[in-house]
Amino acid sequence: MSRYARPVDFKHGKVDLTHGSGGRAMAQLIDELFVRHFDNPILDSMNDGACFALPAGAGRMVMATDGHVVSPLFFPGGDIGCLSVHGTVNDVAMAGGRPLYLSAGFILEEGFPLADLKRIVVSMADAAREAGVPIVTGDTKVVEQGKVDGVFITTTGVGVVPDGIELGPDRIRPGDCILLSGCIGDHGVAILSKRENLSFETEIQSDTAALHTLTAAMLDAVPSIRALRDPTRGGLSAVLNEFAGQSGCGIAIREKDIPIRGEVAAACELLGLDPLHVANEGKLVAVCPPEDAERLLAVMRAHPLAAGAAIIGTAIVDPQHFVQMETVFGGRRMVDWLTGEQLPRIC
Amino acid sequence: MSRYARPVDFKHGKVDLTHGSGGRAMAQLIDELFVRHFDNPILDSMNDGACFALPAGAGRMVMATDGHVVSPLFFPGGDIGCLSVHGTVNDVAMAGGRPLYLSAGFILEEGFPLADLKRIVVSMADAAREAGVPIVTGDTKVVEQGKVDGVFITTTGVGVVPDGIELGPDRIRPGDCILLSGCIGDHGVAILSKRENLSFETEIQSDTAALHTLTAAMLDAVPSIRALRDPTRGGLSAVLNEFAGQSGCGIAIREKDIPIRGEVAAACELLGLDPLHVANEGKLVAVCPPEDAERLLAVMRAHPLAAGAAIIGTAIVDPQHFVQMETVFGGRRMVDWLTGEQLPRIC
Repeated sequence: MSRYARPVDFKHGKVDLTHGSGGRAMAQLIDELFVRHFDNPILDSMNDGACFALPAGAGRMVMATDGHVVSPLFFPGGDIGCLSVHGTVNDVAMAGGRPLYLSAGFILEEGFPLADLKRIVVSMADAAREAGVPIVTGDTKVVEQGKVDGVFITTTGVGVVPDGIELGPDRIRPGDCILLSGCIGDHGVAILSKRENLSFETEIQSDTAALHTLTAAMLDAVPSIRALRDPTRGGLSAVLNEFAGQSGCGIAIREKDIPIRGEVAAACELLGLDPLHVANEGKLVAVCPPEDAERLLAVMRAHPLAAGAAIIGTAIVDPQHFVQMETVFGGRRMVDWLTGEQLPRIC
Repeated sequence: MSRYARPVDFKHGKVDLTHGSGGRAMAQLIDELFVRHFDNPILDSMNDGACFALPAGAGRMVMATDGHVVSPLFFPGGDIGCLSVHGTVNDVAMAGGRPLYLSAGFILEEGFPLADLKRIVVSMADAAREAGVPIVTGDTKVVEQGKVDGVFITTTGVGVVPDGIELGPDRIRPGDCILLSGCIGDHGVAILSKRENLSFETEIQSDTAALHTLTAAMLDAVPSIRALRDPTRGGLSAVLNEFAGQSGCGIAIREKDIPIRGEVAAACELLGLDPLHVANEGKLVAVCPPEDAERLLAVMRAHPLAAGAAIIGTAIVDPQHFVQMETVFGGRRMVDWLTGEQLPRIC
């Protein structure tokens, strides 16, 4: 018999302020939604913090956090739930970490349909299970109608960094190769086409995915990797400019080598977007010494999430640390940071 | 020379969507606000994840997360900034953990004054420094005006649990003593009086504080402590009902032994609030075997944050796991969970 008079109505019910009160309604929502779907013994223990043993020999950890405010909440290829798992798993992975555990903080709007919340939580649970990274602790707040837009989710991940792995843009040297794991722009264009009700011959899907098995395979085969980063908000241009700024090198890329789907390129053209600025949620940029680049490329292409990987450029000597691109027409242009905001609430 | 054309205007400027774009404006806000004030070498490394070495011999960790949506953002005795540090430090401490590091995820409203954001960040930085728990990674999202109410902050903390410390309500046994570290209701009444523009002869201040040095002293002196929890949302009654439900015991407390300030009791009377349901942000409830209770009480009273500690009751045999209170008039009443929501957005 349940501790509660009747079960939460996940069909017709709505979030109300009592779900964030610290009282019985909140306890019930946690039991019947979060604990049930996230389903793991650490979360089950129901303390305010999650306790876990560290893997033997763990010497260094990584911690990463990401808030998710994507609009719309459901989009082709994913939703805010799986996105919030993938985004943080990827941040841990980009630091060279093996993700261990996630926390999830929900901020919910009074009146939000419980059916939608359940769909989001199930999607998170599936993504966490598939990634092998359980959600072990969390928090729920509810604010009055109109004070938040539906649901925002902040996830934090912790992971262990294997000994010997040292990643960071400061390790990039002139001559290093820049690799990209696949097509750019899919996530941003999928969101925008849903938002603007655009339709294309082929539906463009978000590339949202957890990349930690890819990074593990890459680091295992090529421990000399200098830096990894996923080109989310700000797109590829933001990552390359961060790498340039933090390494003190310039970066030269070749437009012809940057993979992009025809329909994504066409959509960007139509919408006036530079695909180099558009967010991705299942791609990464890697930098490695030139002698290891072909081997790294082969390892990446052998992984299903990087079958379309390519070497797109090199780090160069440039005291001004510019990012420049040789265009398909043989010209040369600067690749600057995004200025302004072309796509708010993309993730 | 700065990398940016001109510094962020923290006097007259406002948050705009570019501050969440992943582009140059976001990089500048991170540099000139977060990195500058949170000021620590791990955050300075500016990767998406924070890497840190674990203390030698660390075997178990704890992870806790807390979203903060308090309204108003600034209140007597604190603000959302210090609250977001204290809340999560306390969740780690209640699990018996020594807090090591924090992450902070900000969701900002377009148009929010940068001066207020700076004030909040400085308050977080001060609280983190005072607690000795650096904010090592973070995330910033900006949403359109009207889609979030000012600023919400989700903090996550990680800490190390010393060997031999095992806490949890399931360890509570009939006969165990219930201790409370001080006066209840200060935080909730401080928020509500600010919200409702009430004034009292003496201003009631939030008790927001980091309790990890208190818990460390308590666990050091009395390792037999069964469970610790901070009575935030839902107040003392929520903690006692959680303890009862999770231990399978009943709990009997004595109203006369529960510390409460006269002006807080009067305000609760006036506002129709039950002080047992009102949130605290700098208090804890501890349960220990009866033979250790006086020693634990002495250790608590010796700490500045628990000078007003008291033994307020005992765990009892009760197959229905009720929480009951002997009133000051000698009667007996049930202490139930809060039903409904008396004070939304209290933390």
